[in-house]
Amino acid sequence: MTSERDFINSIQEYVQKYGHERESLIKGIGDDCAVLAKAGEDCLLLTTDTLVEGVHFDLAWHPPYLLGRKCASVNLSDIAAMGGQPKICLLSIGFHGAGQTWFDEFMAGFTKALEEYDVLLVGGDTVKSSNELIISVTVLGEGNREQIRYRSGAKPGDLVWVSGPLGCSAAGLELCRKTQSHSVENADRQQLVNAHLDPHAEVDLGIFLAACGLVHAMIDVSDGLATDLAHLCQVSNVGAEIQQDLLPVSESLEGAARELNVNVFDWVLKGGEDYQLLFTTGPEDEQKLRQLVTERFDRDIFRLGKIIDEQGVFLCNGTERHDISYQGYDHFSGQ
Amino acid sequence: MTSERDFINSIQEYVQKYGHERESLIKGIGDDCAVLAKAGEDCLLLTTDTLVEGVHFDLAWHPPYLLGRKCASVNLSDIAAMGGQPKICLLSIGFHGAGQTWFDEFMAGFTKALEEYDVLLVGGDTVKSSNELIISVTVLGEGNREQIRYRSGAKPGDLVWVSGPLGCSAAGLELCRKTQSHSVENADRQQLVNAHLDPHAEVDLGIFLAACGLVHAMIDVSDGLATDLAHLCQVSNVGAEIQQDLLPVSESLEGAARELNVNVFDWVLKGGEDYQLLFTTGPEDEQKLRQLVTERFDRDIFRLGKIIDEQGVFLCNGTERHDISYQGYDHFSGQ
Repeated sequence: MTSERDFINSIQEYVQKYGHERESLIKGIGDDCAVLAKAGEDCLLLTTDTLVEGVHFDLAWHPPYLLGRKCASVNLSDIAAMGGQPKICLLSIGFHGAGQTWFDEFMAGFTKALEEYDVLLVGGDTVKSSNELIISVTVLGEGNREQIRYRSGAKPGDLVWVSGPLGCSAAGLELCRKTQSHSVENADRQQLVNAHLDPHAEVDLGIFLAACGLVHAMIDVSDGLATDLAHLCQVSNVGAEIQQDLLPVSESLEGAARELNVNVFDWVLKGGEDYQLLFTTGPEDEQKLRQLVTERFDRDIFRLGKIIDEQGVFLCNGTERHDISYQGYDHFSGQ
Repeated sequence: MTSERDFINSIQEYVQKYGHERESLIKGIGDDCAVLAKAGEDCLLLTTDTLVEGVHFDLAWHPPYLLGRKCASVNLSDIAAMGGQPKICLLSIGFHGAGQTWFDEFMAGFTKALEEYDVLLVGGDTVKSSNELIISVTVLGEGNREQIRYRSGAKPGDLVWVSGPLGCSAAGLELCRKTQSHSVENADRQQLVNAHLDPHAEVDLGIFLAACGLVHAMIDVSDGLATDLAHLCQVSNVGAEIQQDLLPVSESLEGAARELNVNVFDWVLKGGEDYQLLFTTGPEDEQKLRQLVTERFDRDIFRLGKIIDEQGVFLCNGTERHDISYQGYDHFSGQ
């Protein structure tokens, strides 16, 4: 089957053909959000995502409350990836067989996540679906026109950063599949499961990073580091080298990888849905950025490598160097 | 299964709980669009709709170009129903098996319809669907805050109007089902088929009606007159009497009804997807409105009856009077 990227490229051609030459359109398709001019210095950010049962979630182990939270968070993460403040939300649900109790729990989770980010649910619709549950969410956000960060700002020499651990969601998904449950006995493993079932949108960090003036390009990791870094590099017309020994790998993730007989770096590099922020800064700003983030959020961020002139995303391990561009999760191929 | 209305009512409760008390939110769920304040006198209109294969369309007879047009039009119609100007659009497609050729034709129709209304496609995403094609569209529009019309403005004594014939889309759907084709030999029947496959969004008329100052309440007819008039009456806290002999029924529609052995009024009252505008005006403005619409658009509009104090939507035929509230098409029950 045609890959998701091919289809997105096709839509991009249509957008370039039909979405051009309007002063109000600052950025069309090809970033985490579309960006439109507003009055003054503000701009409007717009994003939409559809989650489909059997492709993006499995009701066998995803409790409706947590699925509701996740459907909100993955869309809020697109606003976070540009450093915007999410404001309002529309929800469209295609039902197949789910009853009122399921729906109430889903909505409780969905609205709770919105509430945590001070986002309003202002409308939507419900339709019948013939075979599967379909959840489509649109989020509008706002940002300062000068501060909003795009995928396209990376420069050779930049440092590549990620806001937190990667691969946890992929590991959690494997654990859910294996146990057919959302609950595992080991507390470390449960954290991985939770990372998959209830990911966090890095809204506050995204706003801070965009506003601090040090970040050149930003994206969220939804399809895996190998793919999302390739997106960022492609539109920035650069490449990247990632140092394997700089990748943040927790003991918990290594333990789960051993248990499930998986190469932990497959999860870290190719696993999707971690919703960490991936961004670049100038090489001179490493210490300043670490200090700012620690002061404000009391957390670590992780330097992974650097932006290079050569096209491609390369994983470096000692003297070895492999191109891993676009090797993340592709919903179309199911790989 | 729970009816669509029950689910929408449930979402309304959540929106009332979580979408209240913001100055920027003029109108949350419960109208054709959500309405948000913008700078100055303008407001932002927002609507989202999902169309699902096997529920809202059938690929056996719906050509991709016309389906693309329809997916745009049904969403533009929600903006038209409030008298707004559609501006930008997001598209999210869940694919199952459709290939590049199908997609190209769909996009050609979708973007052509947007172009006709000067609407920009600014973004979207593609996802894999496990069993069916899913098309989710979000449209943003703009309008003048004082001119935008809601469902809730109808007053007892008002005249009830519709912008054009009803039941054509329902008849066209029956013809497609019977022939399993988008093409029928008889030219009159083909017009009905076209009304189903490629409905027109009454954007220009909607803007004109909202701006002319005579219209009290407005909605588009997507689920059938019996249901959409009931929505308008319910939120206006009124009822309506429709005169059967005032319903616009074309000879073509009567011919198709005879041929298919259907009561033509079932199509006219209960058939959905005509996307005509349904609206009310003061009783004193009948001639003025007819004249304004004729001068500007060279077309007829149709007075159907009047708004009453009593709750319910009643069909009157001589001395007979039946409550037909919410007897339009319900995607959930499939009736």
